[in-house]
Amino acid sequence: MSTTFSYQQLHNFSKSIFLKIGCSEADAETATKSLLSADLRGVDSHGVARLSGYIRLWEAERVNANPAIKIIHETPSTAVVDGDRGLGLVVAPFAMQVAIDKAKAVGTGWVSVKNSNHFGIAGHHAMMALKHDMIGIAMTNASALVAPTFSKERMLGTNPIAVAIPAGKEPAFVADFATTTAANGKLEILQRKNLEAPTGWIQDKDGNVSTNAGELKNGGTLVPLGGDKEHGSHKGYALGAIVDIFSAILSGANYGPWVPPFPAYIPMPENMPGEGIGHFFGVMRIDAFRKADEFKEHMDKWITRFRASQTIAGQEKVIIPGDPEREMEVERMKNGIPLLPAVVADLEALSNKFKVAF
Amino acid sequence: MSTTFSYQQLHNFSKSIFLKIGCSEADAETATKSLLSADLRGVDSHGVARLSGYIRLWEAERVNANPAIKIIHETPSTAVVDGDRGLGLVVAPFAMQVAIDKAKAVGTGWVSVKNSNHFGIAGHHAMMALKHDMIGIAMTNASALVAPTFSKERMLGTNPIAVAIPAGKEPAFVADFATTTAANGKLEILQRKNLEAPTGWIQDKDGNVSTNAGELKNGGTLVPLGGDKEHGSHKGYALGAIVDIFSAILSGANYGPWVPPFPAYIPMPENMPGEGIGHFFGVMRIDAFRKADEFKEHMDKWITRFRASQTIAGQEKVIIPGDPEREMEVERMKNGIPLLPAVVADLEALSNKFKVAF
Repeated sequence: MSTTFSYQQLHNFSKSIFLKIGCSEADAETATKSLLSADLRGVDSHGVARLSGYIRLWEAERVNANPAIKIIHETPSTAVVDGDRGLGLVVAPFAMQVAIDKAKAVGTGWVSVKNSNHFGIAGHHAMMALKHDMIGIAMTNASALVAPTFSKERMLGTNPIAVAIPAGKEPAFVADFATTTAANGKLEILQRKNLEAPTGWIQDKDGNVSTNAGELKNGGTLVPLGGDKEHGSHKGYALGAIVDIFSAILSGANYGPWVPPFPAYIPMPENMPGEGIGHFFGVMRIDAFRKADEFKEHMDKWITRFRASQTIAGQEKVIIPGDPEREMEVERMKNGIPLLPAVVADLEALSNKFKVAF
Repeated sequence: MSTTFSYQQLHNFSKSIFLKIGCSEADAETATKSLLSADLRGVDSHGVARLSGYIRLWEAERVNANPAIKIIHETPSTAVVDGDRGLGLVVAPFAMQVAIDKAKAVGTGWVSVKNSNHFGIAGHHAMMALKHDMIGIAMTNASALVAPTFSKERMLGTNPIAVAIPAGKEPAFVADFATTTAANGKLEILQRKNLEAPTGWIQDKDGNVSTNAGELKNGGTLVPLGGDKEHGSHKGYALGAIVDIFSAILSGANYGPWVPPFPAYIPMPENMPGEGIGHFFGVMRIDAFRKADEFKEHMDKWITRFRASQTIAGQEKVIIPGDPEREMEVERMKNGIPLLPAVVADLEALSNKFKVAF
């Protein structure tokens, strides 16, 4: 059903499109790497499947292809970055680099970003810290699809959190997750297969439990991690709220129900309190706490011990956060990235529109 | 069934006990405030109900009543604190103060702590930042009761995270939650009432779903927030893991299955890789990002908007994290703190043992 493309093919094509809309050579390269890291790591909903969505935002003049991204306020360990309506795919690596530079100087760096757009997958940005022997943290708010505990109203985005922690001989620990029970991409997969969603993923527009994977189209909402109050959804709601506040209220971006929608055809919310969407990044230098080698030895011990923990019946192994995505990346870099027909058609349409070979 | 005591009664008694085991006047006061904040805020499992447990740890020479708590490594924005086997109730406020001082100097402060003990409720420590117009973060690891996704082995503690964020006219946002679906204290309440636990809270020793609220006594395990893989338990597991790593691998404390147990009668794990239990604290000065007044206005707007979001049938309001605990604190400061007979008996035994009036 799907067609497989090499990383290089998709890289060349995506970069050409970003160049066509007026990105600089360096920005087009950065944006492409951010975008394709999702395809490589198996987060298919956030990769080239979204390229045409980014382009529509540019056509709607909600994305600036030549942003003057800049620090507008800072202290030795913090900064606020104005993304100047740039692609989040470019703004996020800029802000992570600011955080890394601050961590080099004073041990840690913390950067809140306003006036940005969708930044792809959080894990890609968090992982920028790893090669410097630093811990990387990345989070972002997103347009509202999630109802707080006891609510039926769309108030929060899926607001993901990623944390990347270096290890020694073992691969790095990389957690990257939405603060909901399930991300929207998983519902889309179920809809395509005409399957029901498990209970605890979505509510209908009145707040009743629903198993209709297409319930969002009827005004339904996603629910916070936990599912319902009895199972701790107030904790998932709190996490999503913290991401929203760190990303947007610290920086001056929009928050809660006012976050701009990703689809360019959806009108912007009224009376927006900030600029664009917000992100938050953190970097901690390992040796600001203890010798990096010591830390890594203990991380290896942690990972080895958790991998060896006793499994329940029917499961072969306990997974370390980041394992599945890393294995997927190796596999897809070698054997290519499968794309669904709808995504291929989308890219072909871009190819025709911008006269770029695909 | 329960007997009610005034805050002042319980304060005087607890402080006298801490003085009797040899705490300094200042430490006894700090420990008492940390301990009783749990009773005031309605987290009954973490308040005076645990006083005799702390004393048993001191009797077992696992708690040092006169610790030389000190910074053993630091940069402008970070520190590692050695708690010298002190009460976590005292070590945690010391470490938070270090983080606050660093935030004053360079915008943020991040402190990892080793060689400590149980610190009471995380929220109390996080809230120390509020009066300085700073965001406070507190987390701790704890002895293993939780199985990672796909595992039946006790590998992580309930590893709570607290985040306190100042607002303006509205009360502060204070999230404080275990990274499991339910904290152990909730199971104890169900057992006392002879009720079953909801599915998704615990597994039996083989990893099967269980609704026996006493399953932990049979070798069962708590499960991470999410409950099972289908409902995102890998996210709760990742959160608990991040708390463990930040608290213990950054500092040199014990981690995973090696964290010392709270009950003094349980033997210590073998081949422990670190010292004591670990905590992690973070403080961010609001005006290291933007003017504090501006931030607070937007926090008020966030809180007001979320409070006003549409509720599902049968629910009167959407809760802002920290609302129930703050309301409980006002109520209990005014009308007293109810204690169960078992807790009263425990305190009476301490009263007899230490010849302190109760």
